[in-house]
Amino acid sequence: MKEKIKVQVIGATGYGGIGIIDLLSSHPNFQITSLFAKDQFGETINNYYPHLNTISELMVQEIDQNEIGKNADVIIFTTPDTVAMQIIEPLYKKLLECNIKIIDFSGDFRFKDINDYEEYAQKHPKINDTQHSAKNLLHKSVYGLPELFKDEIKNATIVGNPGCFAVSMILGIAPLSKLKLITGAQINIDSTTGTSGAGKSLNETQHFSNMESNFMPYRVLSHQHVTEVKKVVSDLGKKIEDIHFIPHLINTTRGILSSIHIELTEKKSKNQLLEIFKDYYQSEQFIRILDHPPNIKNVRGSNFCDISVDVDATGKHAIIFSAIDNLMKGQSSNAVQCLNIMYGLDEKTGIERVPLYP
Amino acid sequence: MKEKIKVQVIGATGYGGIGIIDLLSSHPNFQITSLFAKDQFGETINNYYPHLNTISELMVQEIDQNEIGKNADVIIFTTPDTVAMQIIEPLYKKLLECNIKIIDFSGDFRFKDINDYEEYAQKHPKINDTQHSAKNLLHKSVYGLPELFKDEIKNATIVGNPGCFAVSMILGIAPLSKLKLITGAQINIDSTTGTSGAGKSLNETQHFSNMESNFMPYRVLSHQHVTEVKKVVSDLGKKIEDIHFIPHLINTTRGILSSIHIELTEKKSKNQLLEIFKDYYQSEQFIRILDHPPNIKNVRGSNFCDISVDVDATGKHAIIFSAIDNLMKGQSSNAVQCLNIMYGLDEKTGIERVPLYP
Amino acid sequence: MKEKIKVQVIGATGYGGIGIIDLLSSHPNFQITSLFAKDQFGETINNYYPHLNTISELMVQEIDQNEIGKNADVIIFTTPDTVAMQIIEPLYKKLLECNIKIIDFSGDFRFKDINDYEEYAQKHPKINDTQHSAKNLLHKSVYGLPELFKDEIKNATIVGNPGCFAVSMILGIAPLSKLKLITGAQINIDSTTGTSGAGKSLNETQHFSNMESNFMPYRVLSHQHVTEVKKVVSDLGKKIEDIHFIPHLINTTRGILSSIHIELTEKKSKNQLLEIFKDYYQSEQFIRILDHPPNIKNVRGSNFCDISVDVDATGKHAIIFSAIDNLMKGQSSNAVQCLNIMYGLDEKTGIERVPLYP
Amino acid sequence: MKEKIKVQVIGATGYGGIGIIDLLSSHPNFQITSLFAKDQFGETINNYYPHLNTISELMVQEIDQNEIGKNADVIIFTTPDTVAMQIIEPLYKKLLECNIKIIDFSGDFRFKDINDYEEYAQKHPKINDTQHSAKNLLHKSVYGLPELFKDEIKNATIVGNPGCFAVSMILGIAPLSKLKLITGAQINIDSTTGTSGAGKSLNETQHFSNMESNFMPYRVLSHQHVTEVKKVVSDLGKKIEDIHFIPHLINTTRGILSSIHIELTEKKSKNQLLEIFKDYYQSEQFIRILDHPPNIKNVRGSNFCDISVDVDATGKHAIIFSAIDNLMKGQSSNAVQCLNIMYGLDEKTGIERVPLYP
Repeated sequence: MKEKIKVQVIGATGYGGIGIIDLLSSHPNFQITSLFAKDQFGETINNYYPHLNTISELMVQEIDQNEIGKNADVIIFTTPDTVAMQIIEPLYKKLLECNIKIIDFSGDFRFKDINDYEEYAQKHPKINDTQHSAKNLLHKSVYGLPELFKDEIKNATIVGNPGCFAVSMILGIAPLSKLKLITGAQINIDSTTGTSGAGKSLNETQHFSNMESNFMPYRVLSHQHVTEVKKVVSDLGKKIEDIHFIPHLINTTRGILSSIHIELTEKKSKNQLLEIFKDYYQSEQFIRILDHPPNIKNVRGSNFCDISVDVDATGKHAIIFSAIDNLMKGQSSNAVQCLNIMYGLDEKTGIERVPLYP
Repeated sequence: MKEKIKVQVIGATGYGGIGIIDLLSSHPNFQITSLFAKDQFGETINNYYPHLNTISELMVQEIDQNEIGKNADVIIFTTPDTVAMQIIEPLYKKLLECNIKIIDFSGDFRFKDINDYEEYAQKHPKINDTQHSAKNLLHKSVYGLPELFKDEIKNATIVGNPGCFAVSMILGIAPLSKLKLITGAQINIDSTTGTSGAGKSLNETQHFSNMESNFMPYRVLSHQHVTEVKKVVSDLGKKIEDIHFIPHLINTTRGILSSIHIELTEKKSKNQLLEIFKDYYQSEQFIRILDHPPNIKNVRGSNFCDISVDVDATGKHAIIFSAIDNLMKGQSSNAVQCLNIMYGLDEKTGIERVPLYP
Repeated sequence: MKEKIKVQVIGATGYGGIGIIDLLSSHPNFQITSLFAKDQFGETINNYYPHLNTISELMVQEIDQNEIGKNADVIIFTTPDTVAMQIIEPLYKKLLECNIKIIDFSGDFRFKDINDYEEYAQKHPKINDTQHSAKNLLHKSVYGLPELFKDEIKNATIVGNPGCFAVSMILGIAPLSKLKLITGAQINIDSTTGTSGAGKSLNETQHFSNMESNFMPYRVLSHQHVTEVKKVVSDLGKKIEDIHFIPHLINTTRGILSSIHIELTEKKSKNQLLEIFKDYYQSEQFIRILDHPPNIKNVRGSNFCDISVDVDATGKHAIIFSAIDNLMKGQSSNAVQCLNIMYGLDEKTGIERVPLYP
Repeated sequence: MKEKIKVQVIGATGYGGIGIIDLLSSHPNFQITSLFAKDQFGETINNYYPHLNTISELMVQEIDQNEIGKNADVIIFTTPDTVAMQIIEPLYKKLLECNIKIIDFSGDFRFKDINDYEEYAQKHPKINDTQHSAKNLLHKSVYGLPELFKDEIKNATIVGNPGCFAVSMILGIAPLSKLKLITGAQINIDSTTGTSGAGKSLNETQHFSNMESNFMPYRVLSHQHVTEVKKVVSDLGKKIEDIHFIPHLINTTRGILSSIHIELTEKKSKNQLLEIFKDYYQSEQFIRILDHPPNIKNVRGSNFCDISVDVDATGKHAIIFSAIDNLMKGQSSNAVQCLNIMYGLDEKTGIERVPLYP
């Protein structure tokens, strides 16, 4: 039996961390060799997350600069913004020599251009004064959205795993941008996310008694994921000046559904739009183009992105819906898809989960 | 003690019916004298709805043309489209002589102009071939949104209680339309409704195992409530050519939140917009203008409509959020507000419910 | 117009506090004159709880011993255990002179006998080492369950509002205890509570992403409310040696349903049991005896306790179900019911809320 | 590559059917060759269940006696009670000759003794007058609970997959019964199930607007699963005369948690009980014995049964909690576990799903 590729997880006790632990526990080619976390450490991971009993009983260690990269082929940072860049910067030469690859879940390595990062950081409520501490590595980073950047991911050493909202938005806009079918006017996007997008940190909004049976907009016109969407989509075709993006929080744990309004440069029928999307994604196994609106339960627990399109009577106002599981295609299983590509494996390996329905 | 005004409820066993029964059970000026229904009758209302035990134990009778208007000052039709117009048409002269007032929960009497009704009916999946059977009464009907049509309601004999989505949209757009601040371009609205908007009829979408943890768009760009919104809002100010309206279904029972995108004719700051809304609704006791986004749990069970505004960096793209309980301000308590006005009572009587939070 | 009775609320920013604010905001006989809290103060109450906008905009003040009792006829402590007893002890003489009445939501004044309190405190995870600081006042306290202690409440100066689980258990057991129909063997009770029972304090269990779609037992055989149940029920009839009580946490905000297993001393049919319960509660307006199992949505937002009974084929094993809204009959509206009784009002005044269904 | 074992699914469009389709779609040893259903047929399965798009696009055919057993090694009946026995009876000889094995999800083949079946059927609200139509096959049937009957399952030709409640109850009682630690007195069990236990059939209770935020007992002391529990558990050790079982319906889709009260014949500590359970299940890979109460989200989507124990101060009243996913260990993945055993495979093959948390 071939030896498995060794993976270190930094940030193991967050939802991103347990997502990776879950997926790699049954992956034929990867094995996790060590778990690190900043706040919760000193016990085995199943002590923090009992659903992992018998699945993973690895010890969670305190993050220790000296341990990073030891006995590992890949490091996955499932940490908040700025953690990965601070840890990697002093180590990068060494990591490179050892041929160690990196995937980061935060925005630290989603931008090749420091200006884009700075626009992103400024919008981010927790890091808006932060300087990037590893600017010189940005040019090596690749935006980890396999449906658009498969070739770059194949050869990448640092992959910036996309923001969850960004995944749902970009996949819904890309085919129209590619064909330059988007007018310059504006794109309006109302997205709805499950609560897990905000992670496990306690706060009043996410207290069950507040959130049950509730629904609310938040971070109106000011969410940082818009920066990566504008960048990626503009690079594909027409430059997008502005996206009016409103995230909403829904009373369920998992799922993102984006409702995207786009003014078209030319009249299209619903069928023509469906064909455009089917063509664009014809070789993509995790994109499903539907002729009726998607919903979040039909993708829950899976790496699928379900997309449908509609158009108004004028044929010029298109609506695209895209639905993902924010913790899967919006986070962990997307990262494993990247990993598979980086190591020349079939990109579906280990992430062919059937959506958990009902 | 003054005698109470007598109310007949037609359609008593739907959610609209039990909403009226609930509200009038403790209203100092009204009393329900008889309950009618089409499918469920022959038992007391608390047999169909045990939460009404000890609150109302009136017998539900089969709808009988001969009983309509007997021993009643008001008839409230909480019935689906076409029921009220068919029952009222042959009786109207008699009802008028007896000075009996009517409130209808369906779209039958929401339009004075038959063309508007026909546009509405065409979009309605259940009645799209229907001819209006009481055309000659339409000119007497009044659109029952007290915040805009208080004077007309005061003297109305037939009130068409607005569609639930329409209430949330109109209240969010009206102040900007009145000031002609809306460009002709377009209005994009993504709304989210609780499941109760579809009533008690069983269907696969609303089966609990399907709907729990789910979220989905439906009736994309084709919901009939748009007709009444366009009509009412255009009449206030600038003619609105089109509204791109997407309803979404959320996994909670009560609540509508509308996220309204409007292009402004002139640059406005958030504070200027807030002032516009506060001015417009200054004498309205059920409209609360907030400086942060509303949510649906903060209005649950009440007649409030909570509204907030935002604007993008250009000052020309406004976002308005409005939140209501679809069964209250979107239906039953709005109807009681109309009733109060029709009978010269303080419009808050009997509907000053505090939102059920948490 | 008669002047209203003045109420101080200590602990205004907890769920108990906002429950009282909600109920008294429309009560014809009471008005809140001041709000106090320990952690959140310095703003008006609607700033902490936006659902109260326009309903109550009273300032929340820091708890200040010198302000307690000023300009007040009643003080309601909606505070955690030990707060009321510590504040009241030094003030009691003064309060008594001013004829100020007290209702406390914690366990501080639920027991006349210090030994019972100590058993209770020992089981309580937050106060298990605590000595009662106002022992000399315990004999004056009355257990605030109107269905059992109406006469005592009428003349009480200190009312200990019962524990929410205790309300549901006692109301379900009392008729059988009174008739000495309970064998000494044991009572097994599995109860399920909505999350609001634990209040607004943030914790991992109640983080939405953990609690959604979840269900779990907790505090197995060790919940402090059992002490008051044993005490009250034993005093009515046969001494109860033990109650095996298991609380469960459900993924909804409001509601308690208790499933009570009791071994009967003599064979009874379901109908006989129903008659026993109907007789016992015949003059109680908030107890509804049903011939089918109750559910928590049929009492949500109301002061009702719905009860049903069943019996096995032997006629000796009875099952009693009781359902309440833990924040209403289990807390705030029960306290207002006590208040009404203490001031000679109709006990239904201000708390005739219809359950919020659907 | 070895050819896969061929599976026919009868009842493909129910929740049991899609559970099997999901699990076998990625199973290395089985493949589904045909799907049959009674009411929904004529389209591919993904048309009825869009979450299966790209996963299974097999045509669903009308049930046709002539097709049963064709091109199949195994037939899985995911049908309601009485369907399997009626279809199998006339075919059994033929099926036996072809060495075709059968798994049935209903109660048709859960009992070797016709008297036990009749007790079961009498309690079942939908089949209480039914005569078993394949009595002569009952002695060949095996109760499909691998943790107790692995050897019998290995050689079985007809496996009766257990009732979902029964799985949770039996696994929680078996170790104590085996050691004859249960007194004859009684066992009290309160269980809570997600809505999916009742399948996809529409009914008023399971209408989302009714069920959201709700919780209720049902089928009090009269659920048919008790018969199989009594039978299995009695056979292991002491004869159980009665189980007072109350199922409750919770507002989530998946999960069963049973709270089991047992009087012990001798005093035991919590640790002693834990050891008893660990010993009994030491070689079982899907049973996890915990030292804290389980919850349903920690087993969701997996084949695990999580069990914990507690005991009161006397050491004689034990509480056992067991949690499963009713559609997995309570249904489909348990059936696949049986399948694996029947074909000599590692029993974990294809069902090592990590619980979907959060």
